[in-house]
Amino acid sequence: MPTVDRWLLPDGIEEVLPEEAARTEAARRQLLDLFSRWGYDLVITPHIEYLESLLTGSGHDLDLQTFKMTDRLSGRMLGLRADITPQVARIDAHTLGAEGPSRLCYCGSVLRTLPRPLSTSRSLIQLGAELYGDASSASDIEVISLMLETLAASRVQNVHLDLGHVGIYRGLVQAAELDEATERALFDALQRKAGDEVRELTSHITQPELAAMLSGLVDLSGDAQVLERAHVLLKGAPESIMVALDELAEIARVLGRRYPQVPLYFDLAELRGYYYHTGVTFAAFIPGTGQSIAQGGRYDEIGRDFGRARPATGFSTDLRLLVACGEIQADGRRDRGIWAPHGEQPGLQEKVAELRQAGERVIAALPGQVDADAAQLGCDRILRFANDGWQVDELQV
Amino acid sequence: MPTVDRWLLPDGIEEVLPEEAARTEAARRQLLDLFSRWGYDLVITPHIEYLESLLTGSGHDLDLQTFKMTDRLSGRMLGLRADITPQVARIDAHTLGAEGPSRLCYCGSVLRTLPRPLSTSRSLIQLGAELYGDASSASDIEVISLMLETLAASRVQNVHLDLGHVGIYRGLVQAAELDEATERALFDALQRKAGDEVRELTSHITQPELAAMLSGLVDLSGDAQVLERAHVLLKGAPESIMVALDELAEIARVLGRRYPQVPLYFDLAELRGYYYHTGVTFAAFIPGTGQSIAQGGRYDEIGRDFGRARPATGFSTDLRLLVACGEIQADGRRDRGIWAPHGEQPGLQEKVAELRQAGERVIAALPGQVDADAAQLGCDRILRFANDGWQVDELQV
Repeated sequence: MPTVDRWLLPDGIEEVLPEEAARTEAARRQLLDLFSRWGYDLVITPHIEYLESLLTGSGHDLDLQTFKMTDRLSGRMLGLRADITPQVARIDAHTLGAEGPSRLCYCGSVLRTLPRPLSTSRSLIQLGAELYGDASSASDIEVISLMLETLAASRVQNVHLDLGHVGIYRGLVQAAELDEATERALFDALQRKAGDEVRELTSHITQPELAAMLSGLVDLSGDAQVLERAHVLLKGAPESIMVALDELAEIARVLGRRYPQVPLYFDLAELRGYYYHTGVTFAAFIPGTGQSIAQGGRYDEIGRDFGRARPATGFSTDLRLLVACGEIQADGRRDRGIWAPHGEQPGLQEKVAELRQAGERVIAALPGQVDADAAQLGCDRILRFANDGWQVDELQV
Repeated sequence: MPTVDRWLLPDGIEEVLPEEAARTEAARRQLLDLFSRWGYDLVITPHIEYLESLLTGSGHDLDLQTFKMTDRLSGRMLGLRADITPQVARIDAHTLGAEGPSRLCYCGSVLRTLPRPLSTSRSLIQLGAELYGDASSASDIEVISLMLETLAASRVQNVHLDLGHVGIYRGLVQAAELDEATERALFDALQRKAGDEVRELTSHITQPELAAMLSGLVDLSGDAQVLERAHVLLKGAPESIMVALDELAEIARVLGRRYPQVPLYFDLAELRGYYYHTGVTFAAFIPGTGQSIAQGGRYDEIGRDFGRARPATGFSTDLRLLVACGEIQADGRRDRGIWAPHGEQPGLQEKVAELRQAGERVIAALPGQVDADAAQLGCDRILRFANDGWQVDELQV
């Protein structure tokens, strides 16, 4: 993590110094190139927008997380983006308007009014990819695969993958016709895996088999056996729930085959992003950290407010977190270099230009600097006039 | 310039769509690599900071241009950066604290409450380089050279360079001991090149030779002859003014030799950034545009509020303006690609992974997609199972 000038910068707002910045830039390039090889086109979204555009489809959490200011030109309220996903959905739904499936990716800073749980930072470099226009599991499999490839390219070790599906809980709640207060309390209790509370809250449901299914969700977390147990528990549930379960099984089957080294976990009571997601949800974790390192899911409704409710699935991560947890190296250019003398001697500038053209890092001495300064700046060679021309020698300090 | 969804985005706030985004990313990489070859280290500065940090040394203009919001954590006022330069100066002065000269560069979005003159945009991708710790003309020559190389690498044509020096006007005003109101009026009149007003305002100066020098500045703009005329006009002026004039002449001499194809113009009444700059100022223009495409100057005092007033000189530009005015091409990857069938057939995923590993763009068909979709997505080849393996064929639509 970067050295931070805490006495001067606001809490959770960081600056990135040369060594980490070089690694971050290397990671950015490698990962955007990876996305490009998978067919994802880069878009650059604005840092500020009208607040209602930014908060589309995202719910209350993002509202609280968004810095707000007034626009002098329009007098309207602007927000500083806390999530790039809704912006990219707007580009797909409105600006580009492609007929068939489309793939977009992005990389940019987002800011939040408060740190996320288990984190101190309010400033992320959000990197992500989105696939629009296809409702099948094939799209979910593609974006989860790309997420795992992103982590592998970042050399993040020991990744495991959590899978869930908001359609199961949502289908049961709809069938049980719970009132809003009960549903909210049940949602909270499930997130805390508070089994007693869940049983109490579901005990008033008139159809006992639905009550059993809802309260049984608490125990449906763990390895692949969860899916078998879910089939037993949810036997006779509404059709949409069985479809959700089949989707999850299909996604797990293909991922298990493609990435046998990545352990899969299932949690049917995990409802991260419940008010936003509409289908499968997923998150990648590394041991010893409670916060996911990359996450995403299906959110088919997001384009509605922009005129087209296209199917959508995608993932995002934090580039700085990848750099901190992974082992991406910078290009190494800062460790080498050629020290050029100060002056306008004949042929000197031409030789310097030629070396830079060839990709060398050449630092020009300033008046009064000596060779010892060159080593401090990472130079390992020096440009000297010898015999009848400029030549590069080893630097001896 | 990008296609803009104007009905939805605030005025002057743009999104960048795939074609332009690919060129912008290519430009970013080429130019940061150029900076690196000159020894400039990338830093990433925060988008928001305490307002007083952002506005350090910059004066009133930047204050009006800066979006402001309250920090929920500290209750203090935050600003959204409208200029990255003061942030990088803080990193040099406080965080890094190098003894000798240091070179830093940056590339990131800045936002302004109002468009700049002759522009409609309030959103720039500011790209720049700064050299700290050396007060000699050698540093100014280096950063101006790097600015010209940046424009050349962006394939911006017909660049010309304007040079000025705030030390000349400042030295004369100090010697003339003008009161603040008169100085402000004189400054305004000079900016408008309003000769009559300038003569009237300087007519009350007790030393007639200083009055003649100040009013003579109006006419000191044009080609290299300006420097000779300035030597005549300013004969007998305070020492600091003659030093400034010599600096300007030295910079012009070296640049004229290094970049004979770049026309040089001088304007000794040009006081852009007067309250910020302390020495030479410069700006690159292209014919037909009133707004400079890149600009900078010396600003030796900026580090003072961060604990160290190091000599400093640097330049900045707008990456999107470079992309619009220049001819940087994207890497061309989006124009080619291999279409892979949908499915989990034996060997298919392995072949796709191998092609991507080799740098190919491979787009996986989604359920229901046909070969015609492939061409629309820029694919020119297709992956087919033939004989006993997967092979890449020309796409026939």
